[in-house]
Amino acid sequence: MAGEKKIEGTARREFLQGAGATAVTAMTVPNLLSATVPRNLEMMGNAIPGLGAADSDAIRTEIEKRTEESVLRLQNWIKQPSIAAENRGMQEGCELMMQMLREAGFQQVKKMPTDGQPGIFATLDAGAPKTLGLYFMYDVKQADPAEWSSPPFEAALVDNPGLGKVVMGRGAVNQKGPEATFLAALHAIRGAGKKLPVNLVFVAEGEEEIGSPHFPQVVRQPEVLEALRKCIGVTMPFASQDMDGSVTTFFGAKGVIELELVSSGEKWGRGPRKDVHSSNKARLDSPAWHLVEALTTLVTLDGNEPAIEGYTAKARPLSAAEKKMIAAAAKRLNEDTVKKGMGVQHWVHDVSFEESLELLVSKPTVNIEGLVGGYTGPGGKTILPGRAVAKLDLRLVPDMTAKESLHIEVNMTGGYDPTSTPMDAKLVIAESAVYTRHGIDPVEMPRLAGSWPGFVFTGEPLKMAASHFGLGHGNGAHAPDEYYLIESKNAKVQGMDGAAFSHVEYLFELAASG
Amino acid sequence: MAGEKKIEGTARREFLQGAGATAVTAMTVPNLLSATVPRNLEMMGNAIPGLGAADSDAIRTEIEKRTEESVLRLQNWIKQPSIAAENRGMQEGCELMMQMLREAGFQQVKKMPTDGQPGIFATLDAGAPKTLGLYFMYDVKQADPAEWSSPPFEAALVDNPGLGKVVMGRGAVNQKGPEATFLAALHAIRGAGKKLPVNLVFVAEGEEEIGSPHFPQVVRQPEVLEALRKCIGVTMPFASQDMDGSVTTFFGAKGVIELELVSSGEKWGRGPRKDVHSSNKARLDSPAWHLVEALTTLVTLDGNEPAIEGYTAKARPLSAAEKKMIAAAAKRLNEDTVKKGMGVQHWVHDVSFEESLELLVSKPTVNIEGLVGGYTGPGGKTILPGRAVAKLDLRLVPDMTAKESLHIEVNMTGGYDPTSTPMDAKLVIAESAVYTRHGIDPVEMPRLAGSWPGFVFTGEPLKMAASHFGLGHGNGAHAPDEYYLIESKNAKVQGMDGAAFSHVEYLFELAASG
Repeated sequence: MAGEKKIEGTARREFLQGAGATAVTAMTVPNLLSATVPRNLEMMGNAIPGLGAADSDAIRTEIEKRTEESVLRLQNWIKQPSIAAENRGMQEGCELMMQMLREAGFQQVKKMPTDGQPGIFATLDAGAPKTLGLYFMYDVKQADPAEWSSPPFEAALVDNPGLGKVVMGRGAVNQKGPEATFLAALHAIRGAGKKLPVNLVFVAEGEEEIGSPHFPQVVRQPEVLEALRKCIGVTMPFASQDMDGSVTTFFGAKGVIELELVSSGEKWGRGPRKDVHSSNKARLDSPAWHLVEALTTLVTLDGNEPAIEGYTAKARPLSAAEKKMIAAAAKRLNEDTVKKGMGVQHWVHDVSFEESLELLVSKPTVNIEGLVGGYTGPGGKTILPGRAVAKLDLRLVPDMTAKESLHIEVNMTGGYDPTSTPMDAKLVIAESAVYTRHGIDPVEMPRLAGSWPGFVFTGEPLKMAASHFGLGHGNGAHAPDEYYLIESKNAKVQGMDGAAFSHVEYLFELAASG
Repeated sequence: MAGEKKIEGTARREFLQGAGATAVTAMTVPNLLSATVPRNLEMMGNAIPGLGAADSDAIRTEIEKRTEESVLRLQNWIKQPSIAAENRGMQEGCELMMQMLREAGFQQVKKMPTDGQPGIFATLDAGAPKTLGLYFMYDVKQADPAEWSSPPFEAALVDNPGLGKVVMGRGAVNQKGPEATFLAALHAIRGAGKKLPVNLVFVAEGEEEIGSPHFPQVVRQPEVLEALRKCIGVTMPFASQDMDGSVTTFFGAKGVIELELVSSGEKWGRGPRKDVHSSNKARLDSPAWHLVEALTTLVTLDGNEPAIEGYTAKARPLSAAEKKMIAAAAKRLNEDTVKKGMGVQHWVHDVSFEESLELLVSKPTVNIEGLVGGYTGPGGKTILPGRAVAKLDLRLVPDMTAKESLHIEVNMTGGYDPTSTPMDAKLVIAESAVYTRHGIDPVEMPRLAGSWPGFVFTGEPLKMAASHFGLGHGNGAHAPDEYYLIESKNAKVQGMDGAAFSHVEYLFELAASG
């Protein structure tokens, strides 16, 4: 068990400015939220297609009427941890998501058993000509309460002085907050007496945080494939705004392989099978040293260039268009902010910022996530460990695939192929229209350096567009003090209501698309 | 903080037969112990010098009369954890040992402040011509109760089907059991109305398990040095018997250096200062890979030959006499039992058993005790760690010293120089006499491959003999289910009373020595 994580929240934020911790103050009582859906932006001069001003206002008002309901739904959800890595609360988390889908208007909601945790398949037939695919996850990353300023499963509303009111808890931004926001949009459209402009085909899994090992089993069910084939593309609700309101659009994502390199006396047949007193090093081989030796074969001496035979053979270099896109992004992004956010002084090989961005999106990597073997506590303990493990992740770029990239036998604990979505996909165009209406000109990047299971949609046999969408903001995915912005102090950054309305706009944009 | 550990219990047992876990059954009620001091052995035909048969019997009877008192003293002691690594119960542990010394007849008992945990200096003037030095430790290793079949600080009496009744708890064999046994001998001699045949000079520390960083501060106090200079040598009470009753005599010990090799973005100035998303490996250096690179400079590729410049320069090869001693030991020890006990199939370089013993006592080592960096939990987590650590121990042989062995700057967390005691030291001769009287012909080895702070006595300025002595048996030092044998089923293996009497014999042997 291990896993790839979407972590676009983290990855994107680290990418743009680093995930800076923000001081928060616990609030004693949730306030009633004031009007929070933008009404006076450029968007007013640029009508939402298929949605008259009166209908638009009605939905806006409905979103605001239901603010407390929406926030409570999200809090209730965060309070139900579903952590696949710990097999904790999985059935409950699956049932809760199914119940929320029924309440949001899905007519068919089916639990989809897999060899792991169950997935969900649901459909909402609005009698519309077009259909949108949705990808949700109901699991969250582990959380150590000791590291949090507000308990990760209490979902407290806390005041973030720089941002506004946020809900803090594991899953707040990755991915329950944005997902609950999408559900809030569905409730508001129906509550306002309006019809959903597109049909929905919904697929979800409970193992995203451990690398989606069984999600293909859900998607490849004939009825699911058939339903997805009718869709314009598949979207995942996402809090795409940074603290300054900006948005970056990625036209794909790197793939990833996670694996453990295990050196044990047991398998090796040399050295001890269990930890023995370290004095025996004089007469025994050491699985830990054997691991070090094995690691040195994977990369160049400095750890920066993959050296696994054949591993990068299919890596496609950046195209001229992609290089141009990155050069433009490099001019718009702030190198100092990015470096400061990550606590780094130098890029690898001391390359320029633009080159660092090229490497980020184009370079296959072999990374050590963790080393663990023998005694790992404070101080020392004189043992010769019988086993040592390196946890690795390998990032893949087109046209590498997870399956083909390693010809050595490894204990692969999770993996995603890279994904790519065309720049002219309808999903992308609809997303851009919403962003533009809000005065946002997204930074564009060929792909996200992080990874997510989008390959299930963009790869064989579906080959559909897949993207992330949503205004709104959050931070701290996979980290302590994860939060999702509920009520924003900054007109450029949407709180939950504004984010919900962005989904309303998106659905109408998609319905009206050519 | 880290530490060298004596672990002769473990080291010796691993050395001889491996520390096999033994099934135990909790007993509900401590039984009254029956007569347990051997009366009918060869020893009866070989009088204890200076101790007539009647006096000897009186002391034996007194030991047996006080069995419950002795066992309760040991249990009470184990129930008071003193764990230097956790700074837990240290003052209490020091006070308790001081109280036990006063009760055992020491006239002067002084707490000796150091820059770390206090040591103890005590003297018992019996008006005898000769004086014996004693080294005790009052700290124990950490213990995780979840791993124990009987709680480590409950000191329960449990039945070990193969051995007899044992007391189970942290410190049972390392070193409270043997130390409490020595105290039981003192109580019995006094209780029987006899005079102690030698004076005692006692030094103790509470940091043995973390490498004795401040013990030299105790010993090098002028009054302590002066007192120790009068001693024949220094002994540490020890449960020297294996499960079959056999004993190995070591004429010294390897030295050890424990250190941490830390690679951090903070210190290095490259790579991240904290954990960042692993996608950034494409554009950042990795402190974990840097650690791997550093490790490869310390040994040959297979991890078996130290490659640190100058490290082994002063290593003295085995003498012809030492080789002969090892060859004799190799014939008496059972290779299969040793291998099975450690779970190994091959010696390093597939050497013979005799060569493996030569390596064990003569080869300087560079061992990885532990690797820890980044994500160490189950599965994976896609981070690029800002820090990774290798915990190492380096074993030294004469004439290497801890101080001279490393010319690189390291975070040395503990270290001992090697120790050597001449084969003709009075301590060794007295010990041999007791073993011989019990029909035991000790296996002899030039040195223990493990380490202990004996260098404080054998090195400058004292240059005295230092040894371990005591019949009796225990196992599990530093491991779960540590035990010390109280009541033995095997006439060849002494329980606590028999072990206490071995100390009585030892003291009289020393008093009578030339």
